[in-house]
Amino acid sequence: MLERFLVPKEDQILIESESMTQATKQIFLKMGLSEDDAQLSSEVLMTSDLRGCESHGVSNMLPIYVDRFGEGAKDLGINPTPNFRITRESPTTANIDGDDGLGLHVLPKAMEIAIEKAEKYGSGSVAVHNSRHIGMLAYHSMMALEHDMIGLTMTAGNSMAMVPTHGAEKRLSTNPWAYAVPADKEPPFVFDVATTQVAGNKLSLAKRVGAKMDSAWITDSKGNPILNEVDLPDDREDYMMLPFGGTRENGSHKGYGYAAVAEIFSDILSGMGPGFLMPPNTYGEMGHFVQVIIIDGFIDVDKFKKDMDLFLKGLAETKPIDGQERVVYAGLPEFEETQIRLKEGIPYHYKVIDWFENIKAELNLDFDLKKM
Amino acid sequence: MLERFLVPKEDQILIESESMTQATKQIFLKMGLSEDDAQLSSEVLMTSDLRGCESHGVSNMLPIYVDRFGEGAKDLGINPTPNFRITRESPTTANIDGDDGLGLHVLPKAMEIAIEKAEKYGSGSVAVHNSRHIGMLAYHSMMALEHDMIGLTMTAGNSMAMVPTHGAEKRLSTNPWAYAVPADKEPPFVFDVATTQVAGNKLSLAKRVGAKMDSAWITDSKGNPILNEVDLPDDREDYMMLPFGGTRENGSHKGYGYAAVAEIFSDILSGMGPGFLMPPNTYGEMGHFVQVIIIDGFIDVDKFKKDMDLFLKGLAETKPIDGQERVVYAGLPEFEETQIRLKEGIPYHYKVIDWFENIKAELNLDFDLKKM
Repeated sequence: MLERFLVPKEDQILIESESMTQATKQIFLKMGLSEDDAQLSSEVLMTSDLRGCESHGVSNMLPIYVDRFGEGAKDLGINPTPNFRITRESPTTANIDGDDGLGLHVLPKAMEIAIEKAEKYGSGSVAVHNSRHIGMLAYHSMMALEHDMIGLTMTAGNSMAMVPTHGAEKRLSTNPWAYAVPADKEPPFVFDVATTQVAGNKLSLAKRVGAKMDSAWITDSKGNPILNEVDLPDDREDYMMLPFGGTRENGSHKGYGYAAVAEIFSDILSGMGPGFLMPPNTYGEMGHFVQVIIIDGFIDVDKFKKDMDLFLKGLAETKPIDGQERVVYAGLPEFEETQIRLKEGIPYHYKVIDWFENIKAELNLDFDLKKM
Repeated sequence: MLERFLVPKEDQILIESESMTQATKQIFLKMGLSEDDAQLSSEVLMTSDLRGCESHGVSNMLPIYVDRFGEGAKDLGINPTPNFRITRESPTTANIDGDDGLGLHVLPKAMEIAIEKAEKYGSGSVAVHNSRHIGMLAYHSMMALEHDMIGLTMTAGNSMAMVPTHGAEKRLSTNPWAYAVPADKEPPFVFDVATTQVAGNKLSLAKRVGAKMDSAWITDSKGNPILNEVDLPDDREDYMMLPFGGTRENGSHKGYGYAAVAEIFSDILSGMGPGFLMPPNTYGEMGHFVQVIIIDGFIDVDKFKKDMDLFLKGLAETKPIDGQERVVYAGLPEFEETQIRLKEGIPYHYKVIDWFENIKAELNLDFDLKKM
């Protein structure tokens, strides 16, 4: 993550991760989730916070989920006890009705089905419709790793955010992708990105930590890329997000194209139709797509993993340009951050901890956030 | 394609496409390809020229192929009569030894195997090792369209071109991707991009038409992104290519990540190992990966295609920003260009036509390029 998104040192409170998992689980239980779903959902959020991806951890998302559980299962609302069912399948494909359940615990079940199919036939692809936010995509793709499979996750929804290249109107969400690929001794390759210049959740993070938007991150209200550093406007109507690349010359049509692919797999293949025709609700209805493929269907797993080590080590040992300490690959800094945060705790903004203390009182919960 | 890559009007000669296909086929036959392989290879190149993607048509690639056929099957050379065989498979996966054959005709056979598997099981993925250049990726992905499947193609090789984000050394090739997705009445979505800022072949095109490099397209010899417009240096050692996005702030880590994924699927899953450990030969050994997935395994094909129409039409009808005529989606301009070029001919640079006339004399061929 870029430096600018980090919680400033003076605003940080370090919390031990297991105590935060327990606090989060209690909140999910109070929302009506089953024991298993509450546990799983907490783990997904905490994996995000441990990996240094706080944009998708408890800070941004949990307050929104809590609001939405209150609204019932219509449009914005989340159904705490969804009736998850397969609506169509073939030996290696399935489409699942998420019944307005929270994607955090709905999607891992879809991924399990994909993995079962791949164990039998070599690959498995599952689309999910009528679902909600899935948190950090990497969690779901990483489920493939221990099975010696390559995992892919995409998601899209009605949260209109992105203009197409040269467009003056929003047509797409932030439509992220994540791949996870196992290695032998090196930390796995885990590539998790929004197809906008910056993930949607990072905008709220930027707001909290007082960071500016860089050149070609957002447009003005007419769709023109803003090419200087600016504050994020307060009103969501006053800006739109650009596909990654930013301008046509720097490849924004590529960000736009990958966004369209995520939309096709998540929303259209799952039967929900184009996101821009859904009701315009942020974090409302969403479709997802997961896919796994067995390495052993192509080559010896052992050779593959050793070659992955050579590849990843070679990337990380690339000579850096002047002024940069090193070159990394996707998943390496997140792996390193996890080791640090497991030992030293997770740095939360004090306002986040305030929120937990308030909701603890409000909902009459019994947890103890352990400071490090 | 950006305006700057077009052949200037005064240098253009318009040639009827069928006569160019026949000329190309004759050259391939003279190189020792079978009748079928020569026909197929010519069609792949001509599909590229018809779609306005002349970077991957006869202009850039045919002269290189002709050189390489002369060198035999070692390292740089191309084997005109490869012994294509499956080295491992599962119900939905296969790995294929391309036996140093030209990817133009090797990869369509791999795609056919993927399609057969998908017809039985819902999806099919095929990796290819020991292959050569495959031309425009879109051709191969588009094979899925008439089967109501979504097609994906990736490729990678030892043609070291791209620095990783913050890197001062080349570590990846231009590692392109292409998706093709069918629609009902609208032209299909066909998204075909290099993971560098600009496709490798467009650099030679730029040279021929005298176009400049834009900001953050290439680096200097030390790996620093060049942020002003420059001519492409004559010596390949004097520059390196940047991942799409260009700079870290504009998302070059995303281009780098997608490039790494193409490398993993094409080179590592196929058993060739990381590209940067192969002998550094442009257009030498390459690995590829194709995948198809049946729409019917998730949802009624009819509903999917009608939703695709809504999606694609919605994108193309997006209000453009001031100064832009319209918004397009991937595959739309290429579809339109094909209709025009079928009628009016393909605009080649006169130097390209000179090359054809020279090789016709040199190899004692009998074709007639029909001017329009």
